[in-house]
Amino acid sequence: MLTPRSPRPLPADHPLTGGATASSPLVQAYRGHRSAVTPVWFMRQAGRSLPEYRALRTGPMLEACLDPATSSEITLQPVRRHHVDAAIFFSDIVIPLRLAGIGVQIAPGTGPVFDRAIATAADVDALVAAPVDLRPEDDDGPLQPVREGVRRTVAQLGATPLIGFAGAPFTLAAYLVEGRPSRDHLAARRLMHVDPQAWARLLQWCADVTGAFLRAQILAGASAGQLFDSWAGSLSRADYVTHVAPASARALAWARGLTATADAASAAPLVHFGLGTGAFLPELHEAGADAVGIDYRMPLDQASTRLGDAVPLQGNIDPAMLAAPWPVLEQHVRDVLERGRRAPAHVVNLGHGVPPDTDPDVLTRIVRLVHDAGAR
Amino acid sequence: MLTPRSPRPLPADHPLTGGATASSPLVQAYRGHRSAVTPVWFMRQAGRSLPEYRALRTGPMLEACLDPATSSEITLQPVRRHHVDAAIFFSDIVIPLRLAGIGVQIAPGTGPVFDRAIATAADVDALVAAPVDLRPEDDDGPLQPVREGVRRTVAQLGATPLIGFAGAPFTLAAYLVEGRPSRDHLAARRLMHVDPQAWARLLQWCADVTGAFLRAQILAGASAGQLFDSWAGSLSRADYVTHVAPASARALAWARGLTATADAASAAPLVHFGLGTGAFLPELHEAGADAVGIDYRMPLDQASTRLGDAVPLQGNIDPAMLAAPWPVLEQHVRDVLERGRRAPAHVVNLGHGVPPDTDPDVLTRIVRLVHDAGAR
Repeated sequence: MLTPRSPRPLPADHPLTGGATASSPLVQAYRGHRSAVTPVWFMRQAGRSLPEYRALRTGPMLEACLDPATSSEITLQPVRRHHVDAAIFFSDIVIPLRLAGIGVQIAPGTGPVFDRAIATAADVDALVAAPVDLRPEDDDGPLQPVREGVRRTVAQLGATPLIGFAGAPFTLAAYLVEGRPSRDHLAARRLMHVDPQAWARLLQWCADVTGAFLRAQILAGASAGQLFDSWAGSLSRADYVTHVAPASARALAWARGLTATADAASAAPLVHFGLGTGAFLPELHEAGADAVGIDYRMPLDQASTRLGDAVPLQGNIDPAMLAAPWPVLEQHVRDVLERGRRAPAHVVNLGHGVPPDTDPDVLTRIVRLVHDAGAR
Repeated sequence: MLTPRSPRPLPADHPLTGGATASSPLVQAYRGHRSAVTPVWFMRQAGRSLPEYRALRTGPMLEACLDPATSSEITLQPVRRHHVDAAIFFSDIVIPLRLAGIGVQIAPGTGPVFDRAIATAADVDALVAAPVDLRPEDDDGPLQPVREGVRRTVAQLGATPLIGFAGAPFTLAAYLVEGRPSRDHLAARRLMHVDPQAWARLLQWCADVTGAFLRAQILAGASAGQLFDSWAGSLSRADYVTHVAPASARALAWARGLTATADAASAAPLVHFGLGTGAFLPELHEAGADAVGIDYRMPLDQASTRLGDAVPLQGNIDPAMLAAPWPVLEQHVRDVLERGRRAPAHVVNLGHGVPPDTDPDVLTRIVRLVHDAGAR
């Protein structure tokens, strides 16, 4: 079990503290302020859609994530190519599990595969009893390669903010309990009801390791953080509220350095994203996020209404549209921009990750369209 | 392309016409009337959770579906064991595709795998140009083994109604375009936007073959029909309304014998079920269904409210709860019953299929609980 430390401010040389990224359209939008240009970036912008990524990434996924030179270069590639308004740190949501000593690989075409599943209460007890020391501020600990990758990236990004990346506790637990990807995450949802206490211990453990992972990226120079709860859409709102939200709030609190954000402007803003989570958007916000990411299923104006028109939104171009003829896609992007006006601020993104076979020129063209539209 | 025929009434010896099943709690509930006992059945009740199924089903899945003796026996097994209020015909949603000449197998642990995907507009054109003759009333055509399986089943069911089974056009197309199961059905959703006309032709073709498949079961003696749109939850409401609902309505019209249900009481009632479709429940109803199936994500009282408290509901015990200690599960079932009172009528079911490793005794116990609760 990790030991929460006392709150710590961002380092004096942090891009937000120093001001390099504090006035960027992205950070401003996450804080609820609109700039002359609407910021845009793409989930999975660093990845297989780019030929320069495919050329660079020859070894196994997790090894690439843990090599600072590789993770930094891959993170920077889409910024150079597309002129997006943010980088997002190239990593994998299971990296904090690997760094906590869990045997896991990314099987190409499948996803995370674990040496053994955490299937029972006894498995959970053994997991949480083992010592884990992921101190986010520590350059001698397991998070060092993450911190170093972030530092190298930030040194080259200048005024472009870097977003830290982490999986939410439920999505991590959905993989851990099953031992591999599954369609309906039934094993995890079973454990939740069969043994709610063991489930809560597992979720808290996941919150601590993934929260430390995200905090490490922020301390090392990331100007924002995003928590990805890819599989939360398999839950009812009631189960999310009772069995998941407390752990997600804990992970986000970690990312803030466990402060109550009394001085929100000096903290890195946090985004909370889930797929198919339209039924509990307010809960995603109330877990402690500054902005909420919306998947492609729900129009942004409707999402904003559900959030009282008080929460900055990120999203939600449909990835299925990226292959459509440009006039169709352009109309869709303009529609997303228009609906996004209902929120206090808007960061344009996809409503899910970039499909690997996407034509990268289409993404560059979207960036230009969004920037030109915002300047009118 | 199939040729729609003129409307035909149910045969004179049909269980509904003859009255054997017309007054059953299930058919009454689908028509909006409550009985002394709340009817209950389980999606995938005929299947791997039963040892008698595992003993019988040795060959490939689709061959079992197309052998009338096997499909009939498997359909009857859970009725004998659990005393559920309905049988549902044991089949697979790709059966009408196979009978239309498409090369497809069910790969164990994976799902439907096609000899080739219907990936392009040219593929769609070739598909819809090929002659298909699935006349639902015809005992000399490809649907004969389905009709014969239904007849054998109904002959043994007596007053217990049989529900016909079919996949909705979108879910069929999601498999066809990808050529196999996928997580986000991106290939299908791409074709929808890249070439909406080709997509519409594909969906209409799917509606015709699956509609004929469901109509064949009804003409052969099924007292109701259920259309399964398992993957519609990957769609936005807007895409569902524009690109999917017309085809689902066409499939349901086929199941009604292409009549406008002027004489609804003499037609077999139809249920429309989707997973993650909480954002467009009214559209599922308006496609031409008598009742709507609700997945485990949304409480029945909330679903009923969205449907104006005017639509019979089916659902929605969480399959993840089936492994929980009995007091936890019992409380959940009672909660489902209580919330279901908001609808004009309620058929208890799961909110998704029976997991293969479910203890069948738990299902029997739920049936007893539901029947006892209704009798109080």
